[in-house]
Amino acid sequence: MNNKRKAVVLLSGGIDSATTLYLAGKMGFDIYALSFCYGQRHKIELQAAGRIASHCGVVQHITLDIDLRLFGHSALTDDIAVPKSRSIADMDKDIPVTYVPARNTIFLSLALAWAEVLESNDIFIGVNALDYSGYPDCRPEYIAAYERMANLATKAAVEGRQKIKIHTPLIDFTKAQIISQGLKLGVDFRLTHSCYDPAQTGEACGKCDSCLLRQKGFEEAGIPDPTVYKIQP
Amino acid sequence: MNNKRKAVVLLSGGIDSATTLYLAGKMGFDIYALSFCYGQRHKIELQAAGRIASHCGVVQHITLDIDLRLFGHSALTDDIAVPKSRSIADMDKDIPVTYVPARNTIFLSLALAWAEVLESNDIFIGVNALDYSGYPDCRPEYIAAYERMANLATKAAVEGRQKIKIHTPLIDFTKAQIISQGLKLGVDFRLTHSCYDPAQTGEACGKCDSCLLRQKGFEEAGIPDPTVYKIQP
Repeated sequence: MNNKRKAVVLLSGGIDSATTLYLAGKMGFDIYALSFCYGQRHKIELQAAGRIASHCGVVQHITLDIDLRLFGHSALTDDIAVPKSRSIADMDKDIPVTYVPARNTIFLSLALAWAEVLESNDIFIGVNALDYSGYPDCRPEYIAAYERMANLATKAAVEGRQKIKIHTPLIDFTKAQIISQGLKLGVDFRLTHSCYDPAQTGEACGKCDSCLLRQKGFEEAGIPDPTVYKIQP
Repeated sequence: MNNKRKAVVLLSGGIDSATTLYLAGKMGFDIYALSFCYGQRHKIELQAAGRIASHCGVVQHITLDIDLRLFGHSALTDDIAVPKSRSIADMDKDIPVTYVPARNTIFLSLALAWAEVLESNDIFIGVNALDYSGYPDCRPEYIAAYERMANLATKAAVEGRQKIKIHTPLIDFTKAQIISQGLKLGVDFRLTHSCYDPAQTGEACGKCDSCLLRQKGFEEAGIPDPTVYKIQP
């Protein structure tokens, strides 16, 4: 059986991974979506991932538990305050406290394991080097080095049955371009979630880096933002 | 505070990782040992890891849960039979069914995350290219590619505060040399566990690849094997 048309797609539940998922579908792949419960402070993004996977019609969606809180040290998994109301220029200055150590390396490694089991060559990740908010593991040179390593790592690659390709279709897109592309592909952005610090009821804060980049993206794309934000006092 | 003397050591509970742990200690590192509960068919090797970490006096020992059974496809995590009584020549012929997809890539990625949090440059893994039993992710070219990728992956590396070194002190050793080295360093091999298919009570089967390589190692080192084997009919 030739399984060359299967793809593993990393799915967080945000705009970028949702658009990436639909792009992989458009390219004709059977999709195996992979999400992680890694000690995020809220599970709302995992609910979003489930809704998107279901809406897109993936073959399988696995959510894997890894408790990265054991290592600590990130505003996404710890009790450090999420920065609010920063200018986009300030976001670009340094790597934010919301950085999770080696996150994409961990996620890609688990995608690689699943790809080998599925006899798939293709892994998709929605990283973005423009609006990347300062994460080192979103840069093209990192992805290239990862791909090279991956092709030395698996039994299937060493035996010549696998040639891993890490697809990063959004890497050179602005957030506005991602949103426009997603809309064309049929992504329902109401199903996605971006906020680092949502209310318990799911409304986005509207002030964290991720909300601000999302708002700016919809604005620049000339598309109404369907996000439900907390009513500010 | 300069934390350059901390090391993350991957610890499975076998001869190789135990010897690697003691070597890192001998080199003067404060040791942070990392083990995984990844859906192994038995937990005896995790008990061994705990005993060894305690005997060696590590600063911290974390066992992380990742359920790789969700991906399936290995005799170590599935119901495929573990091969028995193979010749060493046969083991070298192909990659065994006990191969776990991308295992070292996953383990090193989690070690990398912890190293970044600890502000450590040093990760130790007891891979071995001679008695490596056919695993692609034990080869020097794989380790070199991993190290290169790791130095593009972390915030600390990108900011020039971290230079990751993947230490593989046993990579060119025979099993006999590892055992001799371990003994000199004070490893108590009674605490280690190698068998892929132990009895519920912990005795080794004496016939799987891992038992056979262990027996051969002790024999060639001229050291009595302290392992408790199941009494064969």
